[in-house]
Amino acid sequence: MAGSIFGKHLCISTWGESHGKAIGVVVDGCPAGLALSEEDIQEYLNRRKPGQSRYTTSRQEADKAEILSGVFEGKTTGTPISMVVYNTSQRSGDYSEIASYYRPGHADYTFDQKYGFRDYRGGGRSSGRETIGRVAAGAIAAKILKEMGVHITTYTCAVGPVEIDRERFSREEILKNAFFMPDAVAAEKAGLYVEECMKAQDSCGGVIECVIEGVPTGLGEPCFDKLDANLARAILSIGAVKGFEIGDGFGAARARGSRNNDAFVCRDGKVSKETNHAGGTLGGISDGSALVFRAAVKPTPSIAAMQRTVNQKGENIEISIRGRHDPVIVPRAVVVVEAMAALTVADALMEGMSARMEYMQRIWGV
Amino acid sequence: MAGSIFGKHLCISTWGESHGKAIGVVVDGCPAGLALSEEDIQEYLNRRKPGQSRYTTSRQEADKAEILSGVFEGKTTGTPISMVVYNTSQRSGDYSEIASYYRPGHADYTFDQKYGFRDYRGGGRSSGRETIGRVAAGAIAAKILKEMGVHITTYTCAVGPVEIDRERFSREEILKNAFFMPDAVAAEKAGLYVEECMKAQDSCGGVIECVIEGVPTGLGEPCFDKLDANLARAILSIGAVKGFEIGDGFGAARARGSRNNDAFVCRDGKVSKETNHAGGTLGGISDGSALVFRAAVKPTPSIAAMQRTVNQKGENIEISIRGRHDPVIVPRAVVVVEAMAALTVADALMEGMSARMEYMQRIWGV
Amino acid sequence: MAGSIFGKHLCISTWGESHGKAIGVVVDGCPAGLALSEEDIQEYLNRRKPGQSRYTTSRQEADKAEILSGVFEGKTTGTPISMVVYNTSQRSGDYSEIASYYRPGHADYTFDQKYGFRDYRGGGRSSGRETIGRVAAGAIAAKILKEMGVHITTYTCAVGPVEIDRERFSREEILKNAFFMPDAVAAEKAGLYVEECMKAQDSCGGVIECVIEGVPTGLGEPCFDKLDANLARAILSIGAVKGFEIGDGFGAARARGSRNNDAFVCRDGKVSKETNHAGGTLGGISDGSALVFRAAVKPTPSIAAMQRTVNQKGENIEISIRGRHDPVIVPRAVVVVEAMAALTVADALMEGMSARMEYMQRIWGV
Amino acid sequence: MAGSIFGKHLCISTWGESHGKAIGVVVDGCPAGLALSEEDIQEYLNRRKPGQSRYTTSRQEADKAEILSGVFEGKTTGTPISMVVYNTSQRSGDYSEIASYYRPGHADYTFDQKYGFRDYRGGGRSSGRETIGRVAAGAIAAKILKEMGVHITTYTCAVGPVEIDRERFSREEILKNAFFMPDAVAAEKAGLYVEECMKAQDSCGGVIECVIEGVPTGLGEPCFDKLDANLARAILSIGAVKGFEIGDGFGAARARGSRNNDAFVCRDGKVSKETNHAGGTLGGISDGSALVFRAAVKPTPSIAAMQRTVNQKGENIEISIRGRHDPVIVPRAVVVVEAMAALTVADALMEGMSARMEYMQRIWGV
Repeated sequence: MAGSIFGKHLCISTWGESHGKAIGVVVDGCPAGLALSEEDIQEYLNRRKPGQSRYTTSRQEADKAEILSGVFEGKTTGTPISMVVYNTSQRSGDYSEIASYYRPGHADYTFDQKYGFRDYRGGGRSSGRETIGRVAAGAIAAKILKEMGVHITTYTCAVGPVEIDRERFSREEILKNAFFMPDAVAAEKAGLYVEECMKAQDSCGGVIECVIEGVPTGLGEPCFDKLDANLARAILSIGAVKGFEIGDGFGAARARGSRNNDAFVCRDGKVSKETNHAGGTLGGISDGSALVFRAAVKPTPSIAAMQRTVNQKGENIEISIRGRHDPVIVPRAVVVVEAMAALTVADALMEGMSARMEYMQRIWGV
Repeated sequence: MAGSIFGKHLCISTWGESHGKAIGVVVDGCPAGLALSEEDIQEYLNRRKPGQSRYTTSRQEADKAEILSGVFEGKTTGTPISMVVYNTSQRSGDYSEIASYYRPGHADYTFDQKYGFRDYRGGGRSSGRETIGRVAAGAIAAKILKEMGVHITTYTCAVGPVEIDRERFSREEILKNAFFMPDAVAAEKAGLYVEECMKAQDSCGGVIECVIEGVPTGLGEPCFDKLDANLARAILSIGAVKGFEIGDGFGAARARGSRNNDAFVCRDGKVSKETNHAGGTLGGISDGSALVFRAAVKPTPSIAAMQRTVNQKGENIEISIRGRHDPVIVPRAVVVVEAMAALTVADALMEGMSARMEYMQRIWGV
Repeated sequence: MAGSIFGKHLCISTWGESHGKAIGVVVDGCPAGLALSEEDIQEYLNRRKPGQSRYTTSRQEADKAEILSGVFEGKTTGTPISMVVYNTSQRSGDYSEIASYYRPGHADYTFDQKYGFRDYRGGGRSSGRETIGRVAAGAIAAKILKEMGVHITTYTCAVGPVEIDRERFSREEILKNAFFMPDAVAAEKAGLYVEECMKAQDSCGGVIECVIEGVPTGLGEPCFDKLDANLARAILSIGAVKGFEIGDGFGAARARGSRNNDAFVCRDGKVSKETNHAGGTLGGISDGSALVFRAAVKPTPSIAAMQRTVNQKGENIEISIRGRHDPVIVPRAVVVVEAMAALTVADALMEGMSARMEYMQRIWGV
Repeated sequence: MAGSIFGKHLCISTWGESHGKAIGVVVDGCPAGLALSEEDIQEYLNRRKPGQSRYTTSRQEADKAEILSGVFEGKTTGTPISMVVYNTSQRSGDYSEIASYYRPGHADYTFDQKYGFRDYRGGGRSSGRETIGRVAAGAIAAKILKEMGVHITTYTCAVGPVEIDRERFSREEILKNAFFMPDAVAAEKAGLYVEECMKAQDSCGGVIECVIEGVPTGLGEPCFDKLDANLARAILSIGAVKGFEIGDGFGAARARGSRNNDAFVCRDGKVSKETNHAGGTLGGISDGSALVFRAAVKPTPSIAAMQRTVNQKGENIEISIRGRHDPVIVPRAVVVVEAMAALTVADALMEGMSARMEYMQRIWGV
């Protein structure tokens, strides 16, 4: 295992480089009996496809998923599901320039240092195209969760300095604007802000929020496999993410206990919390409230503005990165965040099944 | 594995409850030949011991570590190192009240939901005393790192709304005040703020920052085992932590690419970065700069102020939590953050050893 | 992880050396709600205790197990169970001789080669005392299995060249003789054979058989985690074991398909197999028949007869190993085999719980 | 993880069914800088290809491997290597008969019991074609080992009752006969024996032996990850294998200590063993001698002779399995055994790199 395998029960193994023949994923541990089709996968992949608005790269990729194994007569068999997306838009161009220097904010330098050389074509394995495998696998996890009554909503809550107004929050709005923001006004402002960045040959970042409803209480393990800890790893493993917070997050660090604690209340024999500052976990275990977390996404590092860097000869140079780059990666990262969250929660659902002797007896029928 | 095992190479298995007989950890995978004594462990444990200032619980715990295996003639043998700390200060008191209801902000409710019942004495496994195992193991990781030229500095950068002034940053100051803040003025203000909380029978949180210097370039794996992703999981796995950010973190989400990218520069044949907005990783792999990350710590949930909650009969009640509780857990959490960071980086050092064929040849001598 | 951690769900972490302070194990992943006491553990440990017959070492060890965590009010809590056995019979003698050379058949040489030095006192970590942790953990696994209707019977089927006669097989006999053989006649012959070895200052080995009844069909995973593959690893991980076979094992290699295949038959609506050449698995998955496997145990390497070896100066020398050694380790290894089998099957029970969507729905109640 | 992932450092994830679109494997953790081509893979795959002699199935499969990722300019990049073999010879025939009953000796029944249904076409995931992924990955492991000076020789040492004569052992002979036997006389006798089985519409099994030379001393971990334990799991995970023994194996169980112990000897300052009854490990750690182990392979379960079984309606029926089946699978399994051995030893090489502080310093250069 060298970093491309994720999950303990629902275990995914992703592979592929930006300009290699194909990109894909193997999903081991999907329970048998789940209805699954290539359309289920494609629906998710389409949400990360480039070229869907003027604020994303104009590169055209079909990103068509094919299921090669693990599904029989429309249902998962319990054995590994292999999925592949063939790369089609790799320009066969001259990479000698990009091969010669280290792009700031990219993994060129660190890959060279780690491995002694690198596949420099389009960033190789460190390209954002790597997330195709995550999203394809995440589509399966999301389908498992849906069957279990768990629903995920993911959206952009900030683009650069433009934040959504919680008063205007509209779930229906999310899919109506290019930024997947739940606030039409903020989305419009975000458009203007990104235009401004583009004119300045610059880029920007933003914040993605994810809300997971219907999670059974009791998911997540004490100590190291807390549900929030595993979510944090899953989300930080996405290339551009630099921060993660659950519930009030960094805000909680400034609050007092009397305000941050969520009171329990019992209504009609059902225990719930009056508020959700915790973001859905207590002691790392789901508490029946919605899981709510946020991810900070950095600005796209590929910009046309001049930057100083070093080439492989060790010379200090100036570069301008031309090409078809997203001025803001946030909108396309929304579904990647959702995919990683789905994988993590589905894994926790499976892990939790052996928490009690009575659960074991319920399955094995003694 | 149900959550109490951490690490792939340097693998720790922690155990123990607040009011059980003992608390401990087994460390498997420590390389042979490291000089190690109980004093090395105790030095770390002492940093999390209660009762060291008026801002922490007055509970007295010796927290004396004993090494039971894996060390011979002063050096690690390569086999598991078992360490135990016997609990001494458990009051044999009456727990029937605490057993009967769910404390807001604690894991009482979720443990009951997950396991069907819980060890309610002092929070059982979800108590902060669980971190003793982490700190004892972290002391070993830190010693490995020291031998490899890696040095960790961890401190408090905010207590409630009181933040340090970076202009006044003084490494020497850290160990001189009760909050482990690198700014004496902020530490004094923090003291006043905590006093105020205590008077109000309330608690507060804060932010801890960790800086790791001397990390070789090339640590961390692509995709899911990015160094920052693994750090995030390690840090979020600490009970009170609600947020994690590396480098500029959430600030990066508001920045532009031109500002957030760190320029490479070559001086005297050595490549480095002019700034460190990234916080020491590119593509999840260490870039030779210092690793810099922050953890948001929530306010202590145990407060004497009245709170609404539910008892096990499903009745809505009001409670006031009496007893010896830390009004702010941040100072004692500093060394826990350091321990988890040390464990993560040491693990990455080992993982990275098989990254190149030439490394394998260097060890196995072909 | 450096070899002392076993299991994916029911995960054990063993530690301790022959002449260290103590030996123990941490069990993570035991489901909550299992009734468990120190007597449950002791019963198993007593079966491996030395000094119970004239055919085992005369060394006296109390081998008294203490549970330090994970059990509350007589039931497992779902959190790690730490168990410790303090070493009491280590003679403080002079180890300079044993430290100076490599005992044939022991791990002295390989530990030195692997780690650069070794804890030479009584074999250190490579001593048979290491199995105490396995047996203590296996007692818990066996108790889980018992609750699930799974029963394990383990016995000696050969001591040196003396084999049991299957016609005389008597389950009741097993606990009545010093060799745990299910055949009194064979046990008597074995006694004579071991006497002969002892007179010749020599030792002998044997074969242990394990039968596991009541295993639900469907345990074990395709490909690499076949139930028999995981059993093989578990059993070969016991120091003295040199071979493993399931069902007809090596005999199957000489049989024809028509004889080796087990016919299915349906009686009263229940499918079963008419024979069990397969030993209870098909395609690595339990088939409802009893699991039946055998382990080949080598002769004790510590013998008083003269042997040639090398000392650390590289001189060729002759040695005679004096001390209290078992002339045959087989009887004491029986419970170790049973413990490892129990751990493996319990783990498979947990792993199998997420094999179907309907199982997940049965637990999470959708 | 549900059984199709193997290895800790060199981690493979196999996928695919007999009659699905394709079969493949993802290899994560291959060190960067290994020269690798599709020819390297094909050479191994060709050794398991059907139709190479009259003693194997006449089915024609191209089994052409394609590398989709992880190799750049002829060298491995350190990131996942995805390999695919498209299925070409699946007959589109009528599977309704085979779908309706359980073939004795196959996994039809256990897959149905485990998953609730099965992909019945050609055995689905439990088909021998599953080993294509193992062999393709094993080819990479073998190439790593070759670079490290480790060489593997694998051959058939028995077909049914026909055993090789060790006096006639000839390494050159192995590739010259249809059974990969190192003894031409035995190979001829084996041919006659298999003819006899074929005439009787029956099948037979055999024994495969593997010798691994040049393994550095010190590989394998104490306790559960003993090199022999991990080899046992690897080999038993191959569908038809029912037994495993290292060194003298079951023979050691009948020997005395004085004979079974291998004496150490020092010649020209180099320590070695005079004999190798142990098969190359002491305490589960490689001792510098060759690793020598054997695998018992059962007779092919698919036979044309009449067999009794049960159909899915629960009726007792008689069947004769027609089609292109190997009368003996042993020759084609030889390379599968070699592949699994190579993967296990390569993994141990990587694992062993962090055994000593000095090794870590040798890589990270302090």
